Amino acid sequence: MKVIILAAGQSKRIKPVEDKNFLKFLGKTLIEHQIDNVRKAGFDQITVVGGAHNLEKLRKLDIETVEQENLEEGMAGAMKSLEPHLKDDEPILLLSANDYLEEKAFQIMKEAADKSQADSLMLAKKVNSYFPGGYIAVKGDRITEIVEKPGEGNEPSDMINIVLHVHRKPLDFIKTIHETQTDHDDWYEVAIDKMIKDGKHVQAVPYNGYWQALKYPWHVLELQKHLLSQIQEPKTANSAEIAESAVIKGPVIIEEGVKIFDHATVIGPTYIGKNTVVATGALVRESSVGADSVIGFNSEVARSYLDDNVWLHMNYIGDSVLCENVSMGGGAVTGNLRLDEQHVKVTIKGDKLSSETNKFGTIIGPGSRIGINVSIMPGMKIGKNTFIAGGLTIGEDIPDNSFVKGKTELEIRKNNRAAGGQLQI
Amino acid sequence: MKVIILAAGQSKRIKPVEDKNFLKFLGKTLIEHQIDNVRKAGFDQITVVGGAHNLEKLRKLDIETVEQENLEEGMAGAMKSLEPHLKDDEPILLLSANDYLEEKAFQIMKEAADKSQADSLMLAKKVNSYFPGGYIAVKGDRITEIVEKPGEGNEPSDMINIVLHVHRKPLDFIKTIHETQTDHDDWYEVAIDKMIKDGKHVQAVPYNGYWQALKYPWHVLELQKHLLSQIQEPKTANSAEIAESAVIKGPVIIEEGVKIFDHATVIGPTYIGKNTVVATGALVRESSVGADSVIGFNSEVARSYLDDNVWLHMNYIGDSVLCENVSMGGGAVTGNLRLDEQHVKVTIKGDKLSSETNKFGTIIGPGSRIGINVSIMPGMKIGKNTFIAGGLTIGEDIPDNSFVKGKTELEIRKNNRAAGGQLQI
Amino acid sequence: MKVIILAAGQSKRIKPVEDKNFLKFLGKTLIEHQIDNVRKAGFDQITVVGGAHNLEKLRKLDIETVEQENLEEGMAGAMKSLEPHLKDDEPILLLSANDYLEEKAFQIMKEAADKSQADSLMLAKKVNSYFPGGYIAVKGDRITEIVEKPGEGNEPSDMINIVLHVHRKPLDFIKTIHETQTDHDDWYEVAIDKMIKDGKHVQAVPYNGYWQALKYPWHVLELQKHLLSQIQEPKTANSAEIAESAVIKGPVIIEEGVKIFDHATVIGPTYIGKNTVVATGALVRESSVGADSVIGFNSEVARSYLDDNVWLHMNYIGDSVLCENVSMGGGAVTGNLRLDEQHVKVTIKGDKLSSETNKFGTIIGPGSRIGINVSIMPGMKIGKNTFIAGGLTIGEDIPDNSFVKGKTELEIRKNNRAAGGQLQI
Repeated sequence: MKVIILAAGQSKRIKPVEDKNFLKFLGKTLIEHQIDNVRKAGFDQITVVGGAHNLEKLRKLDIETVEQENLEEGMAGAMKSLEPHLKDDEPILLLSANDYLEEKAFQIMKEAADKSQADSLMLAKKVNSYFPGGYIAVKGDRITEIVEKPGEGNEPSDMINIVLHVHRKPLDFIKTIHETQTDHDDWYEVAIDKMIKDGKHVQAVPYNGYWQALKYPWHVLELQKHLLSQIQEPKTANSAEIAESAVIKGPVIIEEGVKIFDHATVIGPTYIGKNTVVATGALVRESSVGADSVIGFNSEVARSYLDDNVWLHMNYIGDSVLCENVSMGGGAVTGNLRLDEQHVKVTIKGDKLSSETNKFGTIIGPGSRIGINVSIMPGMKIGKNTFIAGGLTIGEDIPDNSFVKGKTELEIRKNNRAAGGQLQI
Repeated sequence: MKVIILAAGQSKRIKPVEDKNFLKFLGKTLIEHQIDNVRKAGFDQITVVGGAHNLEKLRKLDIETVEQENLEEGMAGAMKSLEPHLKDDEPILLLSANDYLEEKAFQIMKEAADKSQADSLMLAKKVNSYFPGGYIAVKGDRITEIVEKPGEGNEPSDMINIVLHVHRKPLDFIKTIHETQTDHDDWYEVAIDKMIKDGKHVQAVPYNGYWQALKYPWHVLELQKHLLSQIQEPKTANSAEIAESAVIKGPVIIEEGVKIFDHATVIGPTYIGKNTVVATGALVRESSVGADSVIGFNSEVARSYLDDNVWLHMNYIGDSVLCENVSMGGGAVTGNLRLDEQHVKVTIKGDKLSSETNKFGTIIGPGSRIGINVSIMPGMKIGKNTFIAGGLTIGEDIPDNSFVKGKTELEIRKNNRAAGGQLQI
Repeated sequence: MKVIILAAGQSKRIKPVEDKNFLKFLGKTLIEHQIDNVRKAGFDQITVVGGAHNLEKLRKLDIETVEQENLEEGMAGAMKSLEPHLKDDEPILLLSANDYLEEKAFQIMKEAADKSQADSLMLAKKVNSYFPGGYIAVKGDRITEIVEKPGEGNEPSDMINIVLHVHRKPLDFIKTIHETQTDHDDWYEVAIDKMIKDGKHVQAVPYNGYWQALKYPWHVLELQKHLLSQIQEPKTANSAEIAESAVIKGPVIIEEGVKIFDHATVIGPTYIGKNTVVATGALVRESSVGADSVIGFNSEVARSYLDDNVWLHMNYIGDSVLCENVSMGGGAVTGNLRLDEQHVKVTIKGDKLSSETNKFGTIIGPGSRIGINVSIMPGMKIGKNTFIAGGLTIGEDIPDNSFVKGKTELEIRKNNRAAGGQLQI
């Protein structure tokens, strides 16, 4: 069975993260994690579908790549672009690069496909509470309908459709796509619906393992939390240098070339990437720090995602996402808790969405620079290549490529008071 | 002899502290300290006089309580409310809950009363320098006059009247109160004056031990300093967990369930209440921290009073009073020294009073939340249930139940400069 | 040979540093370093030329002092003031207090003068890249011309004129000065030029050792870096107290009475002056801290010059110069790197000059006070006796004797949200 990883999404709702496929967890990109999990489940023929925006980076993965041309057509467009590369007697296993599943999911699906004669198989994730996704109605193992966001109380089952699909005859399925139409981005789903209505056997494969969609910025932290929790035991690379007075506790992975300075503290589960410095008095806990970074003097990084080349200095980074090549001036602080302790809201494509957590900080895009003593309010997004001048309070989202200054008017008067104490000059 | 503790005062000049009777020192409320000291001196019959605002809390003390109805009548009103509970042949020892005296004061008064036949006895505290209170003039041991705030140089003696009074025949004294009148809040004193003029024997009982009035906010820190200095030796509860790299020096009391994290430092005399966390790299010195609090990463608490449920994070709290359930965002700092190093002034009921010290920080009322990187100027008071948005500088008193925002206008321009260094995206 | 140290310069371009002669490096003033180096090279007859502004302090050095009256006449004026103190058969070695040279320079010059019969000798420092100073043209060892700032590519040699000059017959040279005239401050150089044109033998003495001019504020840090690098090995005075958990690494000199508190870190090369406290959790690295100072809790001092009596508290001081009796409030930070990481510019006498480095912080004049959470932008100068109110961002130079406030308007509204959590009052 050929595995197709759909990775052409444009990560619009997760901005200023550039491309979620290349978020790094435990030193490996998300797409590499996906490929590894698929391989561990016994698949070895893998194709990734990308777009013009990320094809070059995807090609470095050393697996077959296919370019999807009409990105606005979503998964249906991906299938159409795949047409020349598929054969009708070769089943495909389709997965979305943006849905993280355990290795077990791929095994379950493989076993189900081996045993069954169904035309298509879809992973059916059991959920405990209402989730605004596509619920499936079933009769036996046959899916009879997919109901998008039915609303709480109207769910046809406790199972939602996860994009881990087998299509036994992929060219047949693509023909169905060509035969259907839609104004919205649900063309793929409409085609599945037609299959069901046409009496094809679309089988539900129940799954109750781990699943995490990567749609919104806070999902980065949720997925990271899961992956950090998988660290079995502490591991320190040979070339790492750890000062005698530094304290490392719990499951912490320390890569080659890392330096942990005096009085620093690292509390697991935490990952510290290659050649990164955790400087004097710094604290990193339940976080992942990329390579070539400096967690400067007395900074705290708590429950945060830091990509490569991030430079901190006397900062607090809490429940935040800092992309590649970000630096923060001394005393800059991310607020990660509202004064009223309610859920933090984040503006996504114009809508204020709840992050469903009361601890969420900021997301800073790649190449940005934050000045000294800057205060960033919870849930704010700072675009890429953006400079924030020192001393400012950031209570609104800042677009990409911005230079942000404040209006500070100083009143300079004659000083008619003397400094106390010991002026000896 | 029956002991009467007058605790109906409304703590107006000490706001935003709610009720000074329930300030906690070394894990015990002020009123409990008073009761303990009285009991240690051998008294066992104790009545406390409260008001509608605090009677419920006083009743939990498990001693007799009496409600004073006319609070504006001060001590005279308290005596009137006590009338039904007193007998004329049973002397009373009257003390103010807001004047802290050593146990010795009660013993001295008891011995004096035992030996003497005087109608009333009043504690006469010797002072070394002028104090704006009631000075007593004496002939032998008889008080001939009480002179309120005579002004420096006009003192009739070096002794001031402290509210630790014995009235041998309390109902007689109450009758004197009924016979006098005053427009001011000095009715009680006017009645004493009448006693003296009527030729009653009002005896001065000299005392040169410790005394601290709790009138203004900075008195909280003065009394605390005294009580901390009484800690004889370090004591750490069995269930407390102290990291190996933490440092505890001097007389420090650490209660049950406390956690002291790595690289934290606690310098005595200091008290750390139950279940409180002193987090990584924090420093607490010469302070009292209540229960269920978190002195977060790299915070410093110096010479300060923190009630229960206080949450800090990368703060400096110096010479300050933080009431119950206060939290401070990362980087918020209390200023505790003026730039010109003069005495810090505090506005009390409209008047700017000197705290008589050049090191005084802030007083924050219960239930308040201070945002990240907020700067609070020395001597400012922040009311209860108040939120201060991040990044602000607070140079004025903030009333109860306020939400404080600043006007930060950002100038967002196109960034035409590139970040230096190693932008790899 | 008599040594003349020219120390009458008014340090205008290095303000708010008061007088560069009295900058302290490794516990000794610059002028003392100069005198020591001269003595070590075997000279024992030393005269210093000062001005009205510093003569009193120079007299404390216990060597001969001469007052230069016409300060605007520069070195020529100094020579004229020296006239009564010189004999024509006694050669002089002239050096500028503001050019730091190794002891070796004085030895080389002495040996050259001993061997040669030249009328005057001038130190000729070899440079590797263009320097905007006076280049010398030579024929054999004879100087044929001095070319001021020839521009890159037009240099007549790779040697520049350093003020370490021998005049065999000083009164003859002074006569030449009297015979010349100039509108500019180059009278001395014009006189040398006349000597050359008159056919006198002015000899170049090549030198390739260390040389550092002290002209601009950043030169303080460059010279300090050199002097710190000369520390051969760590040295801790007997009376210094170092907490067990403190870490001292590398060549660090710790003077008498110093206290290093718990969890503090000092990384060499660093100098800590007498009676100074490095408090809990502080970090000092590659810096010099004067006497009687307090590097308060969690402050970092990196590559900086701190004079005596400097008080820090939770600050970052990077690549900065803090004069005597300066204090910084909690959370105040010096920015030392521009957001675009370009060279930091400093305004000197109205011109924006590049410091030729991308890491340069601030210069704070003596007697100044910086409020809590103040942010100082890179390259800013803060005058002497100046107070900066808390919370401000300083993005412009502040004159001497200023009191700087900001305009913070607060919006205080009714708080209609409740604090979360555990409000128990």
